[in-house]
Amino acid sequence: MNELPVGLFDSGVGGLTVLRAMRACMPGESFLYLGDTARLPYGTKSRDTIARYSLQVTARLVERKIKLLVVACNTATAAALPALRRAYPEIPVIGVVEPGAKAACAASREGFIAVIGTESTIRGRAYDEAILKLRPDARVIGLPCPLFVPLAEDGLVEGPLAEGIAARYLDRVFRVPRERGENIPDCLVLGCTHFPLLADAITHVAGPGVTLVDSAATTARAVKSTLEEHGLRSAAETGESFFLTTDDAERFARMGERFLGFPVPESRVELVDL
Amino acid sequence: MNELPVGLFDSGVGGLTVLRAMRACMPGESFLYLGDTARLPYGTKSRDTIARYSLQVTARLVERKIKLLVVACNTATAAALPALRRAYPEIPVIGVVEPGAKAACAASREGFIAVIGTESTIRGRAYDEAILKLRPDARVIGLPCPLFVPLAEDGLVEGPLAEGIAARYLDRVFRVPRERGENIPDCLVLGCTHFPLLADAITHVAGPGVTLVDSAATTARAVKSTLEEHGLRSAAETGESFFLTTDDAERFARMGERFLGFPVPESRVELVDL
Repeated sequence: MNELPVGLFDSGVGGLTVLRAMRACMPGESFLYLGDTARLPYGTKSRDTIARYSLQVTARLVERKIKLLVVACNTATAAALPALRRAYPEIPVIGVVEPGAKAACAASREGFIAVIGTESTIRGRAYDEAILKLRPDARVIGLPCPLFVPLAEDGLVEGPLAEGIAARYLDRVFRVPRERGENIPDCLVLGCTHFPLLADAITHVAGPGVTLVDSAATTARAVKSTLEEHGLRSAAETGESFFLTTDDAERFARMGERFLGFPVPESRVELVDL
Repeated sequence: MNELPVGLFDSGVGGLTVLRAMRACMPGESFLYLGDTARLPYGTKSRDTIARYSLQVTARLVERKIKLLVVACNTATAAALPALRRAYPEIPVIGVVEPGAKAACAASREGFIAVIGTESTIRGRAYDEAILKLRPDARVIGLPCPLFVPLAEDGLVEGPLAEGIAARYLDRVFRVPRERGENIPDCLVLGCTHFPLLADAITHVAGPGVTLVDSAATTARAVKSTLEEHGLRSAAETGESFFLTTDDAERFARMGERFLGFPVPESRVELVDL
């Protein structure tokens, strides 16, 4: 059981940032990643559809045997986490929203927290709810940044263009009030698994004194402690990663490298039909 | 029959630029638009899936009665036009690729033509084939511009950021060879229904002496002459437009305005399930 992989899924390649963080903090673990690229993006679909897709994807991962499930997608976490936990009571299921909210509450001095994400994640207010549950006095401001996902997928993650687009979304909450001497959030949650790629540009635009919270890193730590609590850590020294995708293995391997930080061998990517 | 609407569809709101061009050149016609927003983007899906979706969408439009069908999406045109013509021999079916290719061949002096589009459209080489069929001596260069669709949807269509991103894609074919005194294309086809919104930024970056061919405008003219050939023009002075969408009528109305150039009343947008 302990030598089974940790399963994780996302609508596409964004969740690979969570895999990257998990590999860094648990090098002995193996991972089985499923990117549902044929049906991406989840962000524009109804909650019912997202929950249905998430259950289908999870069924496939469970069929291949996994010891823990990570929902490495903010939209799917918000729409499907309770349904997945009900459907698979025997497997610990961890989403990306709660660890991100917890880390934000710990990192923020003043409790004034900005959350950036896709339009759907921000509109759904999942982070607002998770943060306010932990810290009812917090003030949360959500900022949809719809261009960040395509920027990250296109590899345009730094320099004046990336910073210019970041400024377009963030200036009204950071630069403008700062110049007026007004309060600004002291913590900024990257509420989308694509966004860690843009961390430098975002930091540059948010300015000094703002702590970035990366839900990939905090989710990885949550997975590690959950595996330890359940006595499920692998004894291996180095684990392996395997990839499933629902569309175009070559494109998955090519795009994946940017998010994972190392090449994804196409031989490790298997096309599956859901 | 003549007073029936012209039907058109796209995976989302991009095809509204084709509707806009058709309304401008045929103010007496009525239109029935279907945006399959629940399943967008088509661009990352397999050709079989795109053909199946296109047939489903068309069946719905035909059920509501239309006198002509416009496939207002480059991806769907490339993947499904023959299948649609076979399925509905009684209705003229017009795609966006052929009119765009024809206009490009007419506009280019030297026969050196650049085509920009989504990754899927450029990889599929539908424009290359259509242009070479009409002008076998042409030299066609395809440039995928994946960020243009999200830029247009986000309303970021002019100024230094839009131009900077356009330069990222186009400089190697226009500015760089021009500075070296090498040949550059004299014609640039906007091979995606989203791109007319970015025409100013694209013109600025392509530089002088490059004719932009907008497949929306040329498709509108092809529809007009086809209606005339078939004796199907409406006798009305002003037509009306109706909208069907497969997801979130409010978002469709909000996004649609940018592409259509005038507000889309939410009361004219009907949610349909395919």
